[in-house]
Amino acid sequence: MPEHPLQGEAARWFDSLRDRLVAGFEAIEDERPGDTPPGRFVRTPWSRPGGGGGVMAILKGRVLEKAGVNVSVVEGEFSSEFRGRIPGATDDPRFWAAGVSVVVHPCSPHVPAAHMNTRMIVTTRAWFGGGADLTPVFADADDTAAFHRALKSACDAADPGYHPRFKTWCDEYFFLPHRREARGVGGIFFDELNSGDAAADFGFVRGVGLAFLDVYPQLIRRHMHRPWTADERRAQLIKRGRYVEFNLLYDRGTLFGLKTGGNPEAVLMSLPPEVAWP
Amino acid sequence: MPEHPLQGEAARWFDSLRDRLVAGFEAIEDERPGDTPPGRFVRTPWSRPGGGGGVMAILKGRVLEKAGVNVSVVEGEFSSEFRGRIPGATDDPRFWAAGVSVVVHPCSPHVPAAHMNTRMIVTTRAWFGGGADLTPVFADADDTAAFHRALKSACDAADPGYHPRFKTWCDEYFFLPHRREARGVGGIFFDELNSGDAAADFGFVRGVGLAFLDVYPQLIRRHMHRPWTADERRAQLIKRGRYVEFNLLYDRGTLFGLKTGGNPEAVLMSLPPEVAWP
Repeated sequence: MPEHPLQGEAARWFDSLRDRLVAGFEAIEDERPGDTPPGRFVRTPWSRPGGGGGVMAILKGRVLEKAGVNVSVVEGEFSSEFRGRIPGATDDPRFWAAGVSVVVHPCSPHVPAAHMNTRMIVTTRAWFGGGADLTPVFADADDTAAFHRALKSACDAADPGYHPRFKTWCDEYFFLPHRREARGVGGIFFDELNSGDAAADFGFVRGVGLAFLDVYPQLIRRHMHRPWTADERRAQLIKRGRYVEFNLLYDRGTLFGLKTGGNPEAVLMSLPPEVAWP
Repeated sequence: MPEHPLQGEAARWFDSLRDRLVAGFEAIEDERPGDTPPGRFVRTPWSRPGGGGGVMAILKGRVLEKAGVNVSVVEGEFSSEFRGRIPGATDDPRFWAAGVSVVVHPCSPHVPAAHMNTRMIVTTRAWFGGGADLTPVFADADDTAAFHRALKSACDAADPGYHPRFKTWCDEYFFLPHRREARGVGGIFFDELNSGDAAADFGFVRGVGLAFLDVYPQLIRRHMHRPWTADERRAQLIKRGRYVEFNLLYDRGTLFGLKTGGNPEAVLMSLPPEVAWP
């Protein structure tokens, strides 16, 4: 298998970020009184037939209707279908990949849904990828500004050129052509990041994770105590339908995961718990 | 635009089958007493930027949570992306296509969901395609047998070789590789049907429509008065999630419709009204 000096450290980082996200979301569950007990993550390890595996952690709570945090460390060989499309895999199809992904679908239509993932991939080359984006039902200008500000800080700490590029990339990526609409209010998206300084790239990826860990819980807390109407809930269920359409029709990570024999439960963990199509 | 002597008659047939399906489903709505009025189809005409259009008819009722019947007659030119993959379109990209499609998601988890569609496509060549399949939450051997029997009769009237081929094709087509499971209990699927006798092929396509029109309402009536539990409803919502996964990940008609600038509301009419992912 391909080896890179940062592999072990990257895998440990994704695990530790998972632990902090899990603790952060469980603390939020404790803060809102309710008839039901606070949600807790249930961890399910899974292994990949081709090599490696991961741990899926899912919480179904009273603030977060469904929150999923998945870490994986997998290795194997790309099928001939993928070889030509993966950097550095044409002649040697072996790969190693690790990452963390988080998707949150809150109970309240006033709390935006959010996604973040970061990953390291090693073939005969090595790179990082990831992103974070916010999907409100009713966009709130303060939330949007705070989310972009946090990601911009993480980007600027690495390279002032990153944020404009990665924000535009996000807007282009999370777009539903058939609806001619954006999935949400954006964030950042980046892939095949290899600046030539892997330690710096890994530092940037850690910064993106920490920025999300800091800002998203603030947005949840800002709205989690506000009541909502049946009409607002209905609007949320329909908005979630667009989320499903995006993930199953266009999301590269989803399609890649399903086509390379990934665990479907882990790959589709991103799908909302309840959805409506009008 | 390409022309075929059966075009006008085919378009009229799809319209008339739509009218009979609509009348059949509205009669079922009348038969079940309820607190809400019987569902009625609402028709919405739409036009396609490239040429032609259709009429979407949707019912949201007390037996049928969502039933959609769509007819369309469209014409235009295949984009360069599609030309090489469409029979007879490589050198002359112009096409004419007409069809009817119906998708029913019943309220009761005891009533199977079902789909049927038939279409005629004309390029420099001409052919028919279509199919019908049944998606129960809790498979019922009698329903399954009745459904297959009806389609077999329609097939056998045209060619005794059709049913075995088209039933297998259906099983292969409506399969979710990432779940390693079938969408439902099958039916028939056929495409690029051109036996050399267009009138006979059109007769077969009419027979498939009539077989569905006859058998599916019987299956609805068999179960529509039976009560259900919250657990059975939950199982239905989860089963519907698999239906969404199939349609957005694999269904050629859906992907083709969205990529060729079809009306997204009409193309995605097949998606269930309420869905859950556990």
